[in-house]
Amino acid sequence: MHWQPNRTTNLSLIMQIRDWMLTQISSSAWPVQYRLPSQRQLAATLGVNRSTIQEVIEELKADGILYSKIGSGTFVASSSWDLLTKQQQPNWQRYIEAGIHKPNYETIQLINEFEQHDDFIRLSTGELAPSLIPSKQITASLQSLALDGKTLGYSSPQGSLKLRRAICDYVKSRGIDTTPEQICIVSGGLQALQLIALGLLETGSVVFHEKASYLNSVHPFQSFGMQLQASETLPFLPCMPKHKRAIAYTIPTLNNPTGAVWSLVQREQFYAHCVAEQLPIIEDDVYHELLFDTPYPALKSMDTTNQIVYLGSVSKTLSPGLRIGWVIASPAVVKRLADVKMQMDYGSSAISQEIVAHWLASGLYEQHVKNLRRVLQQRAQLMENYLQPFQEIASWQSSRGGFYIWLKFNEPIVTTALFQQLVRRRVLINPGYIYAPHDAYHIRLSYAYASEEELRHGLTILLEEAKLSLRK
Amino acid sequence: MHWQPNRTTNLSLIMQIRDWMLTQISSSAWPVQYRLPSQRQLAATLGVNRSTIQEVIEELKADGILYSKIGSGTFVASSSWDLLTKQQQPNWQRYIEAGIHKPNYETIQLINEFEQHDDFIRLSTGELAPSLIPSKQITASLQSLALDGKTLGYSSPQGSLKLRRAICDYVKSRGIDTTPEQICIVSGGLQALQLIALGLLETGSVVFHEKASYLNSVHPFQSFGMQLQASETLPFLPCMPKHKRAIAYTIPTLNNPTGAVWSLVQREQFYAHCVAEQLPIIEDDVYHELLFDTPYPALKSMDTTNQIVYLGSVSKTLSPGLRIGWVIASPAVVKRLADVKMQMDYGSSAISQEIVAHWLASGLYEQHVKNLRRVLQQRAQLMENYLQPFQEIASWQSSRGGFYIWLKFNEPIVTTALFQQLVRRRVLINPGYIYAPHDAYHIRLSYAYASEEELRHGLTILLEEAKLSLRK
Repeated sequence: MHWQPNRTTNLSLIMQIRDWMLTQISSSAWPVQYRLPSQRQLAATLGVNRSTIQEVIEELKADGILYSKIGSGTFVASSSWDLLTKQQQPNWQRYIEAGIHKPNYETIQLINEFEQHDDFIRLSTGELAPSLIPSKQITASLQSLALDGKTLGYSSPQGSLKLRRAICDYVKSRGIDTTPEQICIVSGGLQALQLIALGLLETGSVVFHEKASYLNSVHPFQSFGMQLQASETLPFLPCMPKHKRAIAYTIPTLNNPTGAVWSLVQREQFYAHCVAEQLPIIEDDVYHELLFDTPYPALKSMDTTNQIVYLGSVSKTLSPGLRIGWVIASPAVVKRLADVKMQMDYGSSAISQEIVAHWLASGLYEQHVKNLRRVLQQRAQLMENYLQPFQEIASWQSSRGGFYIWLKFNEPIVTTALFQQLVRRRVLINPGYIYAPHDAYHIRLSYAYASEEELRHGLTILLEEAKLSLRK
Repeated sequence: MHWQPNRTTNLSLIMQIRDWMLTQISSSAWPVQYRLPSQRQLAATLGVNRSTIQEVIEELKADGILYSKIGSGTFVASSSWDLLTKQQQPNWQRYIEAGIHKPNYETIQLINEFEQHDDFIRLSTGELAPSLIPSKQITASLQSLALDGKTLGYSSPQGSLKLRRAICDYVKSRGIDTTPEQICIVSGGLQALQLIALGLLETGSVVFHEKASYLNSVHPFQSFGMQLQASETLPFLPCMPKHKRAIAYTIPTLNNPTGAVWSLVQREQFYAHCVAEQLPIIEDDVYHELLFDTPYPALKSMDTTNQIVYLGSVSKTLSPGLRIGWVIASPAVVKRLADVKMQMDYGSSAISQEIVAHWLASGLYEQHVKNLRRVLQQRAQLMENYLQPFQEIASWQSSRGGFYIWLKFNEPIVTTALFQQLVRRRVLINPGYIYAPHDAYHIRLSYAYASEEELRHGLTILLEEAKLSLRK
């Protein structure tokens, strides 16, 4: 018995040992009624913990392949042969476990799932409430679309020229002077990150980011062997590593999850630093329209060196269901990202592109965003009111815009246990550890989704559960 | 001078040597007016061809960094220091070259580009002509959509439940009995392949396919280290490799590019073989509605073992611009693919999903596809007529449906030179070598895109150029 599990693959020890045992049985090395070596013995021979062996054996007993007799050991069941020869499905579980892309965090998978249930209060959701999405106006605007057969065909690699032209005009107000050649339409900001990961970086490349970062909650870089590197300083000033490609990711206006907004000086300092280091920047600017005050200029507006890959989107402001965002970067970079996008999904929805082009060009978008800002500001104030009772156990900064308040508890109580306990009470939160590994102090609260009554009720439950956690 | 270029990276020798020379200059190892070693000497020391050195030097001369004096050699220019210190842009070219995802074939990049020019005759385009896309009906149907704020929010991981239910009903006519839990909406069939590559396979996994295959024209698998393996036999009967994950990809109905249709016996044989091998199957069924005769059942309709990941789409039948396709597979597989999709783009366009749900459920789709088949059959006949003069130099099979005729020349004349020569004459073809490496005999012709007059004129030019190639 010289086989041992391989610890360098993605396959779990349990899957490997299970498979090895099944082979022992199907090859008749362990015939029907064979008594297995003791768990202790197996653990020693395979070089694994006894609990691992135990788990595999329990699984195979549940499948009817093995059975145990108290006091005499574990045996190969008479029915095992039948079961094994009938079991001709591909072993999909192994395919799934071996896959290159990381699964979502379990917490995020759970959030995605619970969000489908209408009876949850969503205290953290990173999107507009259905009532804030101008669905009637969007429906009405469909009649203004001039859809012809050409528009409804395959898109050009960089996306609709009409939309790219409308974006050129739109971003002028953000201080960005660009051309359609420097724009690539994407299916939302997240896809832009995926394109950057696959189009511009390689295994081992470094992605710098702020300590609490949206990047930790998704895997566009980690799945392909890029290293995330957090920095405590703000605005963080990373150094270009030697002999490696690197890029810095930041949301300078209304950071997700912290809501932070960089000052003008911080922006200038950061940009100058990255220029000196020849370090490219991803500027994620998808929240800027939602700043309550006059916004500071985008980093991209200072970009005389083609340093910046700029991301914009309508997902946070108009409708995430449209799946439309844009990248603005040097023509060579845009061409590369567009080429990768053509190989991933042949472009974004033509109708969504038409809608966004219409909203931008007609001024509907600007008007809508102006109203939205006012409503969000009222909601932010409301949440702050409801947060007052938290003052003895937590602290926060008033929101300057967007969706979020980054609530910080005085004690490290934001654990999976708290998350689960809240789920039991039908309240969904995004715990801080999604955004900053091992952070047990924060919750990303959102005032953009839940109704007034839900906010009040949800925060009351959160307060109760937080206090219970403190007592433990 | 011990540095030598690294031949194991993605970076070209030229990029590496260029960078090394710039470092020599900026570090003052080669100060201003320094005379470089001879090209022969540099080539020997760096272990590269002299032509490579020559190319780098020409580039740096063009940049004003170096200059040559006839008879006395190459020197570092006085202006180089200024140029170098001003040249603080990130070296994007290096980022682009190092990126993980393969670029599209140059030929395909060119095709994508030329397709944007209206003066080309597109003899091979794999999409419906704008006139065959029911754009007026689609525009009209927008008024039937019930878009509310919820629909326009972020999608559930597997996509719109309404659309998934409509697909369940629709695929019944294809003999497929499924549930919404076994369906994941994707942004077209190509994205499904990307999700399978990243979600179910690993580096080194094997993807079996027919010799001439759509898979060769895109890179969802190759970019992540999976090996394509072609098989000559039809239906090909691959064996599951030992110690590796593998999957078989096929288009059993109206193969792209060959147009082949597997018989019922071939389908049964292939499925039984893959079951015995426990080899999973990707059944790409995006052309089946376009078969002129009664279609054979989908492989998926025989699938009692959850062997098959089935792909459907409206891109070939209704509008590629909608970017809507679907995967039907076991619930565990679908859940995994949906989880990866959520990390790649947070779902497909909500409006596109609503449109397709409406077209499927209302019967509009079935009616449209029925008309479309008739029109395509007429176009196929037309192309065959225009192809008659090719009989002395080429052969082909009559089309049984879809878009394509896989024209085979008697001599290997379908080269990049022929492609380029046709581009000069404003005719675009998809040469066979895109689909089967080194194939110089075939062209994938399409009767679905060009107008009658364009088909006639384009094929006349093709005939002239083919005959010229034969004389060379």
